[in-house]
Amino acid sequence: MSKIKVIVHGFGNIGKNALLCIKNAPDMECLGIIRRKESIKNNPVETLGFKEFPDFESLKAEKGMPDVAILAAPSRSVPELVTEYLALGVNTVDSFDIHDEIPNLITTVTPLAKRYNKVAICAAGWDPGTDSVLRALFEAMTPAGTTFTNFGRGRSMGHSVAARAIEGVKDATSITIPLGGGRHARLVYVVLEKGVKLEDVEKRIKADAYFSKDPLEVKAVADSFALSQVADNSHGVVLERIGASGAASNQRLSFDMRIDNPALTAQVLVSCVRATTRLKADAYTLIDIPPVAYLLGDRMEHIHRLV
Amino acid sequence: MSKIKVIVHGFGNIGKNALLCIKNAPDMECLGIIRRKESIKNNPVETLGFKEFPDFESLKAEKGMPDVAILAAPSRSVPELVTEYLALGVNTVDSFDIHDEIPNLITTVTPLAKRYNKVAICAAGWDPGTDSVLRALFEAMTPAGTTFTNFGRGRSMGHSVAARAIEGVKDATSITIPLGGGRHARLVYVVLEKGVKLEDVEKRIKADAYFSKDPLEVKAVADSFALSQVADNSHGVVLERIGASGAASNQRLSFDMRIDNPALTAQVLVSCVRATTRLKADAYTLIDIPPVAYLLGDRMEHIHRLV
Repeated sequence: MSKIKVIVHGFGNIGKNALLCIKNAPDMECLGIIRRKESIKNNPVETLGFKEFPDFESLKAEKGMPDVAILAAPSRSVPELVTEYLALGVNTVDSFDIHDEIPNLITTVTPLAKRYNKVAICAAGWDPGTDSVLRALFEAMTPAGTTFTNFGRGRSMGHSVAARAIEGVKDATSITIPLGGGRHARLVYVVLEKGVKLEDVEKRIKADAYFSKDPLEVKAVADSFALSQVADNSHGVVLERIGASGAASNQRLSFDMRIDNPALTAQVLVSCVRATTRLKADAYTLIDIPPVAYLLGDRMEHIHRLV
Repeated sequence: MSKIKVIVHGFGNIGKNALLCIKNAPDMECLGIIRRKESIKNNPVETLGFKEFPDFESLKAEKGMPDVAILAAPSRSVPELVTEYLALGVNTVDSFDIHDEIPNLITTVTPLAKRYNKVAICAAGWDPGTDSVLRALFEAMTPAGTTFTNFGRGRSMGHSVAARAIEGVKDATSITIPLGGGRHARLVYVVLEKGVKLEDVEKRIKADAYFSKDPLEVKAVADSFALSQVADNSHGVVLERIGASGAASNQRLSFDMRIDNPALTAQVLVSCVRATTRLKADAYTLIDIPPVAYLLGDRMEHIHRLV
């Protein structure tokens, strides 16, 4: 059986973890990594034996045509990359995580996927991603009710990036603390620029749209090393729903997950790589995908084992 | 918008709850209930205002052609009923729950569904059913690892039926108690036939294949009313998985559900009714179905709300 040929575009935390997941998938092989020329030159990284290429053409010339590209690049660059890869005849899997813009992404990508006869899985990961599947399933089980998504405790990438952009902040890490009922507090550790007062930075963070609605605590640490010691990749979520099935109230559903964040995100992306080879040409989020499509091996085996 | 026309075949606990769920679904209407002639005559039940028919033809003559039949009949009768309804041009949803025979059911039903250009969703409910979806999703998230399914505490239908069939037992209810690690104890309440000793019945139950592998306790109660007081419809499950995503071990996933059992089963069946109208002709288990297909309303709305 020929293996699924995968490339990894972008090589941060997610890209690196995706490679480790591909290595554990007996039905896949990685043809290589695509990173910007300047990154390859100026920011050498351990690539686990896989070759880096500055662009698709050079990868294709040496390694041949891939089946699927994992887009492990920042969300902002995802729409352009999806368009580009679909036009090249490559399925895509991305972890686009700007929730409000996901419907637009799907609307844009759908006609492209159909035109190029390829599959694009968008907004994969755990939230958006597997949490989305659980929220849908919970509603199918109890149509009347409310679901709360309680994130954390763990480092929020989005909030950390927002805090780093605040004037007077040299470096920052934002930790999400669940308060219950889908509400969260933010604990932000900052490395201050020279001569900047903590109270001024705290005011600016508090004024930022990312932080203005939640209880906030800001603490200063000496440097980026100290910052790296206040949070690792641990994260988690509790999804809770209390609702009714027909006339029966008090149906209680709860999902609790404690994980290495980039590892789980990358694993979901890699399971989606497999799904792209089993779906017809279209754009998908995870609520659009039959769960069996993610799994290695034969459908009937899975029905026997899991159903 | 025309409503999905549903009929309910069989009218036990599941059938009754299915009606209540259909009543709450604004996109569905129930055309009627099908029960055996003798049941209609000898065992009158509250049908919530819906009319009973002794067979499909009489229902169709009066109410017109339905789109979907919910097969709320015992599992043993499901294969024949699915075949019958598909040939009549009606989609089917069943809660066939003999786990080992589900692959055979799918193998049998697949060519029929295709021949008659209809959709059959098999083994719907919560286990098999939504638990199956979670087990598949958990494996997509952490391919290496072990999932435990811990049922209970709650009444097991299958074990209660098995206990009732034991010599010397007039009536019985079997309660499943989770012991952790996917193991269970059985607490069986029995109403003894006159002159029968509890210890003899206990030995026979212990020898039955349904009970031989698990810790067992058997208690006698006076009559069926007393039996009806030891267990209601409460049930639950904890699905636990500890596994690895790529190189990251210690990924911890847990799903905990506390529910009215027939109400949840019926609600899943009714959500599957909707799914049958959105899938192409084929036989499906729940791991074969995109989760969005269960939900009332527009896919893009759900992507916006849930993803």
